[in-house]
Amino acid sequence: MVDDIRDRVKRAKADSIRLAAVDTLDKDRALEAMACALDAQRSRIMGENALDMDAARSQVESGDMAPVLMKRLAIDDRKIDGMIAGIRDVASLTDPVGETLDALELDEGLELFQISCPIGLIGVIFESRPDVVPQIMSLCLKSGNATVFKGGREALRSNRVLFDTLKEAIADSGLPSEAFQIMETREDVGQILDLDEYIDLLIPRGSNAFVRYIQDNTRIPVLGHASGICHVHVDAAADLDMAVAVVVDSKVQYPAVCNAAETLLVDGAVAEAFLSRVAERLRQQGVELHCDPRSLSIIGGVPATDEDWDAEYNDLVLAIRVVDSLDQGIDHINAHGSHHTDAIITSDRIAAGRFAALVDSASVMVNASTRFADGYRYGKGAEVGISTNKVHSRGPVGMEGLMIYKYVLVGNGQVVADYASGARTFTHRTLDKRYGDQ
Amino acid sequence: MVDDIRDRVKRAKADSIRLAAVDTLDKDRALEAMACALDAQRSRIMGENALDMDAARSQVESGDMAPVLMKRLAIDDRKIDGMIAGIRDVASLTDPVGETLDALELDEGLELFQISCPIGLIGVIFESRPDVVPQIMSLCLKSGNATVFKGGREALRSNRVLFDTLKEAIADSGLPSEAFQIMETREDVGQILDLDEYIDLLIPRGSNAFVRYIQDNTRIPVLGHASGICHVHVDAAADLDMAVAVVVDSKVQYPAVCNAAETLLVDGAVAEAFLSRVAERLRQQGVELHCDPRSLSIIGGVPATDEDWDAEYNDLVLAIRVVDSLDQGIDHINAHGSHHTDAIITSDRIAAGRFAALVDSASVMVNASTRFADGYRYGKGAEVGISTNKVHSRGPVGMEGLMIYKYVLVGNGQVVADYASGARTFTHRTLDKRYGDQ
Repeated sequence: MVDDIRDRVKRAKADSIRLAAVDTLDKDRALEAMACALDAQRSRIMGENALDMDAARSQVESGDMAPVLMKRLAIDDRKIDGMIAGIRDVASLTDPVGETLDALELDEGLELFQISCPIGLIGVIFESRPDVVPQIMSLCLKSGNATVFKGGREALRSNRVLFDTLKEAIADSGLPSEAFQIMETREDVGQILDLDEYIDLLIPRGSNAFVRYIQDNTRIPVLGHASGICHVHVDAAADLDMAVAVVVDSKVQYPAVCNAAETLLVDGAVAEAFLSRVAERLRQQGVELHCDPRSLSIIGGVPATDEDWDAEYNDLVLAIRVVDSLDQGIDHINAHGSHHTDAIITSDRIAAGRFAALVDSASVMVNASTRFADGYRYGKGAEVGISTNKVHSRGPVGMEGLMIYKYVLVGNGQVVADYASGARTFTHRTLDKRYGDQ
Repeated sequence: MVDDIRDRVKRAKADSIRLAAVDTLDKDRALEAMACALDAQRSRIMGENALDMDAARSQVESGDMAPVLMKRLAIDDRKIDGMIAGIRDVASLTDPVGETLDALELDEGLELFQISCPIGLIGVIFESRPDVVPQIMSLCLKSGNATVFKGGREALRSNRVLFDTLKEAIADSGLPSEAFQIMETREDVGQILDLDEYIDLLIPRGSNAFVRYIQDNTRIPVLGHASGICHVHVDAAADLDMAVAVVVDSKVQYPAVCNAAETLLVDGAVAEAFLSRVAERLRQQGVELHCDPRSLSIIGGVPATDEDWDAEYNDLVLAIRVVDSLDQGIDHINAHGSHHTDAIITSDRIAAGRFAALVDSASVMVNASTRFADGYRYGKGAEVGISTNKVHSRGPVGMEGLMIYKYVLVGNGQVVADYASGARTFTHRTLDKRYGDQ
């Protein structure tokens, strides 16, 4: 079994080279074939999903599975419509492969091109949502990346039928379909995490604990975030109506997600005026308030403990702290946040600029809800994930996160000895041309 | 001691936030102060270096140190001149911080800016070359990155005096100098590799074994390469005079470095005509040839073993294999190379394009020497390192490898609920403006 996994990953890596060179039209044709195949196989897909759902139902009844996971697992006609639309959206995106990012003449007749290319082989490890398969498979195909999937046991049949349907469509389109592989058993995860020789990037999709486990157990770069502890800082110069609206939206609009606010910081200068208003609105929405001593004295609530400042509730709970200054708010965010998304409400441009410069987070919102931090809202067309990494990709990541570049140097026999001796010198002149132009 | 290391790294991380916001003029003033300080402290620097050299000399005499390391360790007036010139070169580079990489209107009055910013805290672990300190310290300062250094024991005094001189100049210029820290004892390395909570990127400088040790023992992203197994493929359509010149340069011009060629692949169609010519030239230069059976039958030499195809000689040795086709050459390179730099010699544009597309290496040379793969030759002004990573930075890396970005969304109170309900829709219109413009 162990050898089988390594073999499949090696096959995917080998085919990744050919996939990287497939042209745009052929990739778009394959994507359309994938969309049509899902449409044609609806009953087979829903039939296999029904078997997973039966097994899940008995697990929920015996208390071995959270009911919310069943909802994520279910595939109906509407979900298949969404998968098909998603694949066609990806087909409509610009091909990111082969773009000339930079062109530089090193010397006459010696031209250096920096060209975008796929990263290579992407590992996708995910929990119970089978719709990850068509979404990531289409993004990886369009961006020329090979992919190995590892789904959860509870979605085994659903993942398999989706994967087989899509892979067959890729093969029928004449593309190197061995670039796509799926693993199924639970034992595979550790194996996959060890294959840093072949896998270039891991994308985990699941709970915070799941993502953190993967980050902590592999040397492969991981694109993702393990937590979302987001703040709204209400500055002394805030428009308080705006602040109420943004705080309520950041907390309440969808509290279960990573870009919802968990902590409210309020400048002492406006604490009295602001807190009673926002507390009323939040409590109307069922939000429980965990307050530091100063905010507690104004609005009451649950006394906050030290744990509250580092908590990701993902629920209708908000920690509240009164701070003495903008810088105290910034320090709190950098110390307790998850470097994901943090907002300031202020009419003071200097305060806004300082907050944006000094808050070390992937997204900084000035007078806007934290909930905007999302690939679709950021106009990316499709979202690979949200990253809190400090290298490669940060914040909401679209297909650009699956790309790297290579340098191609085109000469006519130049040798370094001539430049080392001083017989020739470099010109280093920017070129306005693309690789492949005459 | 352990707590002391963690404390210093935490101090550097804390000051990294302030350093990221220092403006260009202040950074350039500090760089000039650093250059002047090295000039003023020449005798002190050379005095401390002499003590390291004395210790090294006895280690060389007792066989505990390779003589080449002493040459790298030595600091004379000419080396200090080089350090000073290097710092002034960095000062003259464009400030990479705060550039607007992208600007998008999400809706009227809701504008998203993608802005370049420093990565944060860089860890630099290096062997006996003390000139790494001024080089990386100036690059990190200009790019707004905090830095922790860990040098080798053999250069302890030299590293310390350079570091102290430069840090004092930074402090005197009023910049957050605690952003720069140095560790000295040998025990620190393991400690530093564990500090992924604080350190965002590691740059190792040293032998292949040293770099590989670091890559294998940390979860911090590592910018570098552990080996350089570079190939020259002589295609059936090669200009053979050009091929001889490029092969000789790639092997002989500086054989000890990572971008020197280790393996020559020759298409069978030109093997007879080419190999005798190139072998004569290579042997004149003292190169030992390790040949596969077909090349052996043409030019003689040492019979190659399987190990030769994966060897990085870093010396006057070249492995030679005759291949049947371009694709066999490409497959050999992808299987045995280190994804660093590989060259093709051909007059056939289609063959060149196929080689550039399918060879999975950071640099692909068409009719040019592998030795051109270098930050200075690529026009980067200063080189952070050469990377064989598939994420973030690939190939010769300049100051751009020390940068990431953040998103700043500037609104006037927008909430996601309005877009979720359909009351408002996104415009996603590209903006031709920079962050901070009215």
